[in-house]
Order: sequence, then structure tokens, then C-alpha cells
Amino acid sequence: MASAEFWYEFASTYSYPAALRAGALAAARGVDLVWRPFLLGPIFAAQGWRDSPFNIYPAKGRYMWRDLERTCAAMGVPFRRPEPFPQSSLLAARVALALQGEARAAFSLEVYMAEFGRGLPIADRATLGSVLAGCGVDPELALERAESDANKAALKAECARAAEIGVVGAPSIVTTDGEVFWGNDRLEQALDWAASARG
Amino acid sequence: MASAEFWYEFASTYSYPAALRAGALAAARGVDLVWRPFLLGPIFAAQGWRDSPFNIYPAKGRYMWRDLERTCAAMGVPFRRPEPFPQSSLLAARVALALQGEARAAFSLEVYMAEFGRGLPIADRATLGSVLAGCGVDPELALERAESDANKAALKAECARAAEIGVVGAPSIVTTDGEVFWGNDRLEQALDWAASARG
Repeated sequence: MASAEFWYEFASTYSYPAALRAGALAAARGVDLVWRPFLLGPIFAAQGWRDSPFNIYPAKGRYMWRDLERTCAAMGVPFRRPEPFPQSSLLAARVALALQGEARAAFSLEVYMAEFGRGLPIADRATLGSVLAGCGVDPELALERAESDANKAALKAECARAAEIGVVGAPSIVTTDGEVFWGNDRLEQALDWAASARG
Repeated sequence: MASAEFWYEFASTYSYPAALRAGALAAARGVDLVWRPFLLGPIFAAQGWRDSPFNIYPAKGRYMWRDLERTCAAMGVPFRRPEPFPQSSLLAARVALALQGEARAAFSLEVYMAEFGRGLPIADRATLGSVLAGCGVDPELALERAESDANKAALKAECARAAEIGVVGAPSIVTTDGEVFWGNDRLEQALDWAASARG
């Protein structure tokens, strides 16, 4: 089966509509989607940014919020601008990485819905605990695993891997032949590529 | 008839595929497309950039060149990376602004083809003269009009207007109700919006 990696960051605005769309688009093309949570912080830091570029460059930020609002309206999904922006996504990313397979995908989708659909603070253990319980995962156990030294190190390694393979933003789809496609608006093209590279 | 503005910069990489696609996409939706050449320089300068962000941030540059190569290959159009990048687009923008209607659109398309399809230096008067002649426009007359004080001032005003209405990059489509859509990948959405806002 063809496969592709979906690299996403919980604080990333365009990762929200992308996460909602990616699973169905991949399935329709017979592509197995591997969910790979990571952090943009180290990638932004390498470019000299210590904040979201949407905050550093307010004109781009204003454009992005309106564009995202239109995108969500066209999809018929709720949209709430998180305050503050960006949300701290470290704990959510650690939890997602500690989960496997369908639990990781389900948890990730629910985190995005909580953050950008309902405006909930995703850095809060209470928010994440509630999302975990909703996914049928034991919150205490999942948070304990998420904060283990091994899992913390694994997330660091994922961030280094993202930079190494040429990921410059989120969401990105990376195909098995090493192509990187960046942005919610590249999902179809990326998954078409992944499907045609099969076998 | 519904209309929409197509804001483009000759040095902008993604304006190349967008310029090739925009006319047919607009016509298919019954949207009259108004070609508005401008310069990104003042907008970048307002963000503290004195060069293309694709040069300032090499990782983003590497991604963009590969992405553009894939985009052009999928469209079946030639692609040559201009050297140096970005090309100085001032004279080409002045010439385009001094032309009207279909001559402006035809000239602009040919400049993009020369620059990104054949790798020609678009800051050269010889390149622009040849493009003008190919469009059935008298090169000497067009260049003289382009470099008149009135036309230089008009281009400055266009750049100020772009910033004022929220244009943050090129290409952008701006609808009559003030929506800004940025990027080659937003053309369809923007022109759908323009078509539905009609009447």
C-alpha cells in the first residue's frame, strides 16, 4: 500500500483544516497516512524567529486569519481564533507521539477541534485529559508516557528529522520518495503524488 | 459583469504559473480580470526585508524552487530558474502599467514566459523591447511612456494601494467586495468568490 507522512504542529493554524481533510483524502487514494506530530519552534528558531511569523509580520497575520476563516466556512467547520496565539503545543505533541496508530490520529483531530473549533487552551492538562478520555484512552497513563524521558527525546528526534528532510512549515506531506509538500492547499497534490509513486 | 483584480509582480515566482492560468479561469467563470502590476519591494521593506524572503530564508527558498518545478511540470509549461533571483522588475512593471487592457495582459504573459520559461533577463531593455514587438506594440514608444514621470508616479501609487488593501504577497486576487486571496493556489477560490459576488 502506498503511504505518506503527515507532519503537523498543534499550534499551526492551517494544520487544523488539513488534519480534518487528510484522512479522507488519503483513504480515497488508497494511501496509508502516517501521522507525525512535531514542533515548529526549532525550525522557526533556525530562521531567527522566536514567535509565529504571523505575529512577527502583522500584515501576514491579518491575511492568514481571514483566509483561515474563509477556508473553515467553505468546509462548514467551526472556527475560533485561539487566545493567546500561538498556543503552547509541547504537551499535546508529546501526548500525540506517545500514542500509536488510530489513537494518535483520533487524539490529534480532537485537539485541533478543541483548539480551533471551540477555542480551548490546549496547553492545559485538563483539556488534553478530557480529549484523551473522549478517545477512550486513559488520561493519566497517556500523560505519564508522554512525559517520560524516552518520549521527550523521541519528540526532539522527530523535530530534527523534520528539518533534515526539508520540512519548513506545517502541515507538510512527505512522500516515500522524499518529496515535501507544504500547506493545506497541497494535500491533494501530495496524496496524488504518493498514490502514483506506489509499487 | 463580475470582475476581479489580479495583482502581480514580475519577480514573483508563483506569479508565473498564476499569470498563465488566471485568464482562462476568470473567463470560465464570467469574471472580467483586471491586470494590476505592482512591486513587492515596498511591502517587503515594511516587513524589514531587503531581499526576497526566499533568499533570506534558504530552507524556504529550496522548498519553493522544488515546489515551483513540480507545479510547472504538472502544467506542462517550461521552467528556468532566473539568475540572478530576484530579477529587477521595475522597468517591466512600468511598461506593463503604461499599457492598457489586452496589451497589458499579453505583454505580462510574455514577460513571465521570457523570465521563467526561457531564463531571459527581464531588466534588459532588449528583452522587453523584443517582447513588446512580439505583442505588436512599438517598443520605443512604450518604453518612453513607461519612463514618463506620470507613469512612474502611477506605479508608486499602485504599490501604496496594494499595501492599503491588504496585499501581502504576489500573486493576489482582490474581489470587488474587498477580499484578498494570496497565491497561485487560491486562484480558483478567489474567482469563484468573485463570480458569486456578482450583481
